[in-house]
Amino acid sequence: MKDQARRAIEACRRIAAMTEEPGRITRRFLTSPVREVHAFLQDRMKGLGMSVRTDAVGNLRGLWSPAGAHERLMMGSHIDSVPDAGAFDGVLGVMIALEWAELAQRMEFPIGIEVVAFSEEEGVRFGVPFLGSRAVAGRFDDALLGLKDVNGATVADSIRQFGLNPEDIPEAAMDQSVVAFVEIHIEQGPVLDAENLPLAAVTAIVGQSRGTLVFRGQANHAGTTPMGLRRDALSGAAEWILAVEEDAQGTGGLVATTGKIAVQPDASNAIAGEARVSLDVRHADDRIRRAALEELIARARRVAVRRELGMEWTPLVDEPAVPMEERLTTFMADSIEAAGFPPVRMTSGAGHDAMVMAVRVPTTMLFVRSPGGISHHPSETVHEDDVEAAILAGRIFLERMAASLG
Amino acid sequence: MKDQARRAIEACRRIAAMTEEPGRITRRFLTSPVREVHAFLQDRMKGLGMSVRTDAVGNLRGLWSPAGAHERLMMGSHIDSVPDAGAFDGVLGVMIALEWAELAQRMEFPIGIEVVAFSEEEGVRFGVPFLGSRAVAGRFDDALLGLKDVNGATVADSIRQFGLNPEDIPEAAMDQSVVAFVEIHIEQGPVLDAENLPLAAVTAIVGQSRGTLVFRGQANHAGTTPMGLRRDALSGAAEWILAVEEDAQGTGGLVATTGKIAVQPDASNAIAGEARVSLDVRHADDRIRRAALEELIARARRVAVRRELGMEWTPLVDEPAVPMEERLTTFMADSIEAAGFPPVRMTSGAGHDAMVMAVRVPTTMLFVRSPGGISHHPSETVHEDDVEAAILAGRIFLERMAASLG
Repeated sequence: MKDQARRAIEACRRIAAMTEEPGRITRRFLTSPVREVHAFLQDRMKGLGMSVRTDAVGNLRGLWSPAGAHERLMMGSHIDSVPDAGAFDGVLGVMIALEWAELAQRMEFPIGIEVVAFSEEEGVRFGVPFLGSRAVAGRFDDALLGLKDVNGATVADSIRQFGLNPEDIPEAAMDQSVVAFVEIHIEQGPVLDAENLPLAAVTAIVGQSRGTLVFRGQANHAGTTPMGLRRDALSGAAEWILAVEEDAQGTGGLVATTGKIAVQPDASNAIAGEARVSLDVRHADDRIRRAALEELIARARRVAVRRELGMEWTPLVDEPAVPMEERLTTFMADSIEAAGFPPVRMTSGAGHDAMVMAVRVPTTMLFVRSPGGISHHPSETVHEDDVEAAILAGRIFLERMAASLG
Repeated sequence: MKDQARRAIEACRRIAAMTEEPGRITRRFLTSPVREVHAFLQDRMKGLGMSVRTDAVGNLRGLWSPAGAHERLMMGSHIDSVPDAGAFDGVLGVMIALEWAELAQRMEFPIGIEVVAFSEEEGVRFGVPFLGSRAVAGRFDDALLGLKDVNGATVADSIRQFGLNPEDIPEAAMDQSVVAFVEIHIEQGPVLDAENLPLAAVTAIVGQSRGTLVFRGQANHAGTTPMGLRRDALSGAAEWILAVEEDAQGTGGLVATTGKIAVQPDASNAIAGEARVSLDVRHADDRIRRAALEELIARARRVAVRRELGMEWTPLVDEPAVPMEERLTTFMADSIEAAGFPPVRMTSGAGHDAMVMAVRVPTTMLFVRSPGGISHHPSETVHEDDVEAAILAGRIFLERMAASLG
């Protein structure tokens, strides 16, 4: 399977050259390099004897089906990218899915395999992610068609310009023939690399709370205001930032991040009168996440009271966790083990198309190690051995699934 | 002296209406409202029998001199302002100096009184402060003439446009006839207000260290990077910001401020890979200030080592403290006490024209309480009783000075 791994990686490298910006990988929803990617994938899909179509939201879909089969396993990931991206985020999942499809054909898999290259997952062009998988899951809200990009083009415009008809989007929705969805994706984090492991089965996409915390003190002259007479909003924010870190370190599986900060007046000779800090809290268990958030807001309140600061929390996001289907995920972990690796299970801290699909159909994910934990960056990479491991685990997964369908 | 206090405050209110921006007080170096201020002050100076001139850097100077006197006491403050300023920063010092001049005449003060309305102290228009007092102190570097404002006009252009000749600036320098300089100024801080005191004698303008501290960690995904695998630059910065506060609180007379912060990539879903924090440290004793700065940099280094962050300190300013002349300052404190108030001595945390003048001539300052500690803001104000106290203390100061000259 080394040849298959090399071919998948080589395909990712070739697709990386299909970009909006020479020298950087940037491929937003239905921009012109997407046509090149479609042409490349269509060749590959047709080589596998698949029937190929582009649905109305721009997903490229290849279907192989054994004679008489009425059901199918759907697999896929996305082919759009963030600006200045790496070569493997999304694309590797499509290429490995096509390798699995080839294995399925060889083993005479009893049901069809549909591989989907989702047109949009990152949310870069229109500010809203998952345009591709929303349509396949039958959850594409028509209001999305009116979103505008920086040039004022709407989603509907971009679809028409690509030669598609937004009115046909409802036909992109999958029907009852899809019995399961599997997404293969690079981890985009450092966990597997830190443990020197190639693969993991994903148990859930974590839930996420996001919001902004503002501390309000009194802006004053840095030279004329003695320490004892200050109400320094940035010192209050600093105390809270450390409290966030401490609480998250003390709660298993919790991540909490203060990634964005702005102070007013933001001058070296002025005490900060206002400090505005973002908070991002994630956990696979929604009760733990919400309890942690409550505690962090309470800690901010205690800091504010002690320092005589004003304090205000503005919630922005409260997305529940999305569990993967337990039976499929156990198949996946068992397949990893049968392939010769520890059957690691982990949560995904990032969102994926799988979280949209999971609402409609039994879904699981396979993570492939990200060396250095690096993603959304040109130096994003994968080990060839890990891709080979993913293909091997896939063969076992398909065999077990075939047996269970039998 | 209540009438004199009212007159001084009323004059500040009238000058406040002479502004570049209707509805806000903004009066930068030699902009057109400065002509109105000069006309207003010239009337007042001439009413006191002063000879009035505008020197080549735009300082308005009124001189009263008793017959046969060869020496003079110089007093003054600045008439430029920050954008959206209050009515009393600088201007009140000029108006109280004119009230002192009137008292000097009545008491037959033995030497002359020259009141200077300095043209520039805030550094707003050309980015460099003290243009007016530098010229009077004979420390005006010709290179300053080439500085440009936001419209590309140079200092030399602005002087010519005001009808003055920059080549005459050397003639603005005071000669040996000036035996002392006194500046009266609002405190611009909360110390006197917190103690419910009207006045203070200033012992020194504090020295100042300023620079930028950068922590470098690893930018990473907020969802996929477990707490134990993070190198969060903002958390490191937060720890250091609290250390700065703690050290300053523990060192008498020290103020240390982290007023400006910027992180990269500054996104709510990304761990900060870089955090850049300004540091401003001030103390009247240069050894204490420099030792404190060393300790704060050392604490940053310890934070960086423990958190596996990079750390870099870039020094920007190292200005020594400027002591006021001891004998004059004792006169001032004694005069405050004789006027019926506690003889408070304090340092100035902000820069003033007096720090430029002190290099050339025995200098002291009198601070007038800033209610609420508010300055550089439209709500900046003064109490009428405090201005009256400053005029009374001035009469006593002049009497003692006259006696000492006798």
